[in-house]
Amino acid sequence: MTSLKSQSNDIADKHTPLLRNFWYVAAKRDEITRAPIRRTILNEDILFYRTEEGKPVAVQNRCPHRSFPLHNGYLNGDRIVCNYHGMEFNPDGSCGLVPSLNSAPRSIRLDAYPLQEEGPFVWIWMGDQANPDYTRFFREDWWDKPRWTVLTGYMFMKANYLGLHENLMDLTHFAFLHSKWNLAKREHTLAPCTITDEGNHIRQFEVHEGVDFPPALAEYAGMKGPFNREAHHLARTPAMQEGHQITVDVSQAGKTDEQYITHYMTPETATTTHYYWALALEHGGGDSVLLGQMQTLAGAAFEEDKVALEEIEAIQNRDHRPGFSERIIKTDEGGVRVLRMFAKFAADEARQTIAA
Amino acid sequence: MTSLKSQSNDIADKHTPLLRNFWYVAAKRDEITRAPIRRTILNEDILFYRTEEGKPVAVQNRCPHRSFPLHNGYLNGDRIVCNYHGMEFNPDGSCGLVPSLNSAPRSIRLDAYPLQEEGPFVWIWMGDQANPDYTRFFREDWWDKPRWTVLTGYMFMKANYLGLHENLMDLTHFAFLHSKWNLAKREHTLAPCTITDEGNHIRQFEVHEGVDFPPALAEYAGMKGPFNREAHHLARTPAMQEGHQITVDVSQAGKTDEQYITHYMTPETATTTHYYWALALEHGGGDSVLLGQMQTLAGAAFEEDKVALEEIEAIQNRDHRPGFSERIIKTDEGGVRVLRMFAKFAADEARQTIAA
Amino acid sequence: MTSLKSQSNDIADKHTPLLRNFWYVAAKRDEITRAPIRRTILNEDILFYRTEEGKPVAVQNRCPHRSFPLHNGYLNGDRIVCNYHGMEFNPDGSCGLVPSLNSAPRSIRLDAYPLQEEGPFVWIWMGDQANPDYTRFFREDWWDKPRWTVLTGYMFMKANYLGLHENLMDLTHFAFLHSKWNLAKREHTLAPCTITDEGNHIRQFEVHEGVDFPPALAEYAGMKGPFNREAHHLARTPAMQEGHQITVDVSQAGKTDEQYITHYMTPETATTTHYYWALALEHGGGDSVLLGQMQTLAGAAFEEDKVALEEIEAIQNRDHRPGFSERIIKTDEGGVRVLRMFAKFAADEARQTIAA
Repeated sequence: MTSLKSQSNDIADKHTPLLRNFWYVAAKRDEITRAPIRRTILNEDILFYRTEEGKPVAVQNRCPHRSFPLHNGYLNGDRIVCNYHGMEFNPDGSCGLVPSLNSAPRSIRLDAYPLQEEGPFVWIWMGDQANPDYTRFFREDWWDKPRWTVLTGYMFMKANYLGLHENLMDLTHFAFLHSKWNLAKREHTLAPCTITDEGNHIRQFEVHEGVDFPPALAEYAGMKGPFNREAHHLARTPAMQEGHQITVDVSQAGKTDEQYITHYMTPETATTTHYYWALALEHGGGDSVLLGQMQTLAGAAFEEDKVALEEIEAIQNRDHRPGFSERIIKTDEGGVRVLRMFAKFAADEARQTIAA
Repeated sequence: MTSLKSQSNDIADKHTPLLRNFWYVAAKRDEITRAPIRRTILNEDILFYRTEEGKPVAVQNRCPHRSFPLHNGYLNGDRIVCNYHGMEFNPDGSCGLVPSLNSAPRSIRLDAYPLQEEGPFVWIWMGDQANPDYTRFFREDWWDKPRWTVLTGYMFMKANYLGLHENLMDLTHFAFLHSKWNLAKREHTLAPCTITDEGNHIRQFEVHEGVDFPPALAEYAGMKGPFNREAHHLARTPAMQEGHQITVDVSQAGKTDEQYITHYMTPETATTTHYYWALALEHGGGDSVLLGQMQTLAGAAFEEDKVALEEIEAIQNRDHRPGFSERIIKTDEGGVRVLRMFAKFAADEARQTIAA
Repeated sequence: MTSLKSQSNDIADKHTPLLRNFWYVAAKRDEITRAPIRRTILNEDILFYRTEEGKPVAVQNRCPHRSFPLHNGYLNGDRIVCNYHGMEFNPDGSCGLVPSLNSAPRSIRLDAYPLQEEGPFVWIWMGDQANPDYTRFFREDWWDKPRWTVLTGYMFMKANYLGLHENLMDLTHFAFLHSKWNLAKREHTLAPCTITDEGNHIRQFEVHEGVDFPPALAEYAGMKGPFNREAHHLARTPAMQEGHQITVDVSQAGKTDEQYITHYMTPETATTTHYYWALALEHGGGDSVLLGQMQTLAGAAFEEDKVALEEIEAIQNRDHRPGFSERIIKTDEGGVRVLRMFAKFAADEARQTIAA
């Protein structure tokens, strides 16, 4: 019941510098094609396209000569051609040609960003471009589950990305913000919640007894109910938070349904966020009506979170009452731990910058 | 003919802090119902609703927990329920329930604003919430005139509220800005104008001889003309300015028509204003066509003031000519006195803040 | 290949104060009539109208009394009347009447700007209003060519005006940004370019061999081709850049076509520009279809420049990659020389301001 958040740099907030040394979701795989697109990530304008062999490319979307955005240009083989004075650049950012010089000076080059194409996404490394840290690229369990079904979605959010982390670490909002979907009952807000620091990640775990479960999904999984839900939320990087949800059929021992609901938050700026999500289903693969329902439900529920966080950002900019600071209660413990972890990351990055 | 306004803190301007220790019009009575609404006043986002018994309530529209705007929630009896994590608050701002704690901590509470419901409006006290100053709540004469007719209107103005005070204290603009309504003739700009400091208010008084008067209103009042107009303007608080207009039938001794035209300016921010007005008519009550004309005339004329003040605010932001400062002439005396009074109020409030 | 531009105050950039001691195009002649219009130039809001005798007038568009924009008023003979309290002003900026004083105080006056009406334009002097420098008003050759045809155009550009100067001093962009118009081939980017400081102006000269030439214009001029183009660009003031283009019919000795393409950039603010252009044609005068084509071609090509410069301004505001600075190559020499000249102008004006 204290206002911890405003007291120190120990807890990241929207004024904390955006964190660079992580892999962020840059795009869904099928967004990156031979038609170049631009996207701003961590305040940098980036151009994405594929080489003729299909490899995704990310380079700075700004000609080093006169700052013309390269997405207005065109591909010449694997090179992007600036449409102002015709400079050409290779996928590694080096210059391929300056037409008026008939040469390719080494001093003219683009930032080029390491990418990883894995799961349904293309991931981008926003730290030191020469030394991407692959130990910070975390594979998700469900990428290797071939018979599972994966649904994905995207929203653009006019709010800082940290709100999404806080939101996901406190599921007591289900009974209110998402009340129309019957995901949780009012009494579930009283369920005990365990938060564990497991070394390189923070895990939140709680069990909700007597939850609703979509009848179509239950039928598909051969489950009758009543149902309990075991919900894990795992936070490790500022780029994502992995939910793992196990629904247990209380009437049939060992009968369960598993889902992974992973949220990817890629800061565009300090006040805007690319919000991707993936829902990986153990059951439901063959039923297109059921999948359509799940896609709609997930999209609509996450839209409620997005809108809530945008409203919060708006009121923080609009309401200037003297002496206001947010109060923290017991259910915020998970969120506070995550924000504390990010504050440490930010301190590490600040030290690196000074050392470099 | 000096540029007094830019010379000192003796005269309030748009950089003067907004004045808190006053009663402002918050809403027309019928705007506040069981359906909660938000409105920003003096940079604070405020929620308005009525209790089950019909009492108006004003509390901060921002949950103290995670800043979610409460107008997205719903009423549970007399309590507003936050739609993010379900916290409930009483009309006095105290917490009624935190569902996840199953208790109501005293440290979690909303600002609650004293209200007065009088005349056609609900008034809000923006000073110390524990000690509203009722001696600063000024009743208007026409609230107690049961057979009079009252018309009201609202406009949102993208300009600082002080311009409205200046505008109303210099009626020489009638012959120009409002020329299409024949409210005053060019020669009336030369009429002498008396400004009197009457203790807790400043009165401006002038007589315009040979004015036009709406024929329908004249017929209703049994007046033939020619007409003189005695115009009083009374400024006392930053929240309002009361006009009292007596039209005298020169051909019939003692035959007059009285109107009160009161202007209410409630700063939303330093650059935007809620502008309410009320027109109280001694005559005209039974004639709906006449009342419609008066409503239209008043709304259209005040709209001219609003647009003019918005244009002035816009040009102040746009025109950056070196060395410019506004010139003051004789007719500005009333406005300057009012702005001087407000500068004193601001100095008083600054002293209180330091003392507190 | 250095990043000269960010290293010093020797080269003007968008942070350099706008230059005042020059004649800028304020409007096309026919834009200024008896119906007053407003236009912001160098951050000053200016009113334009014509006297009863037809002389163009430019005065500050802001009443010195209460800052009401004068373009909302009306003309009383040659005087502009403020529509707020009726103040009247003469074309020289002096007050003609304050109605409520029934006098015209000398201390109340408007800035009045010297104008020159020449060629297709009205030019405004933005320096010391009492001492316009007519030696800085440069007549253009084609103003005195009575049988030539002149086309003009206007665009509003959301970018600093300096980009237009740089753009025009490096025509290697023709083969890329304007590729659809076949104005230049890729190999022309390698053509040698001569830059000469000719005292009070900088001239850029280059010859492009084997260029396309509009067939209709060739027929009109009795030319068969192949064609060479001699392109001169002459920069002298921040207000304009004069292109002079001579197309030579290689198969007929002495057979040529001349065009002047003059670009006028009038800063509205540091980030917005009034962009006028004039295309003066030696041939083509009698053929309205041909003229329509030329008007369309010029307008569409210059629109490409405008959009490119707006995109550059936008990316400079949006892309915040650490350590970025633009690289300069050989073809930027003309642009850099012009920006260096403007930096000297800015230093001169700063010294004048300190001295004054």
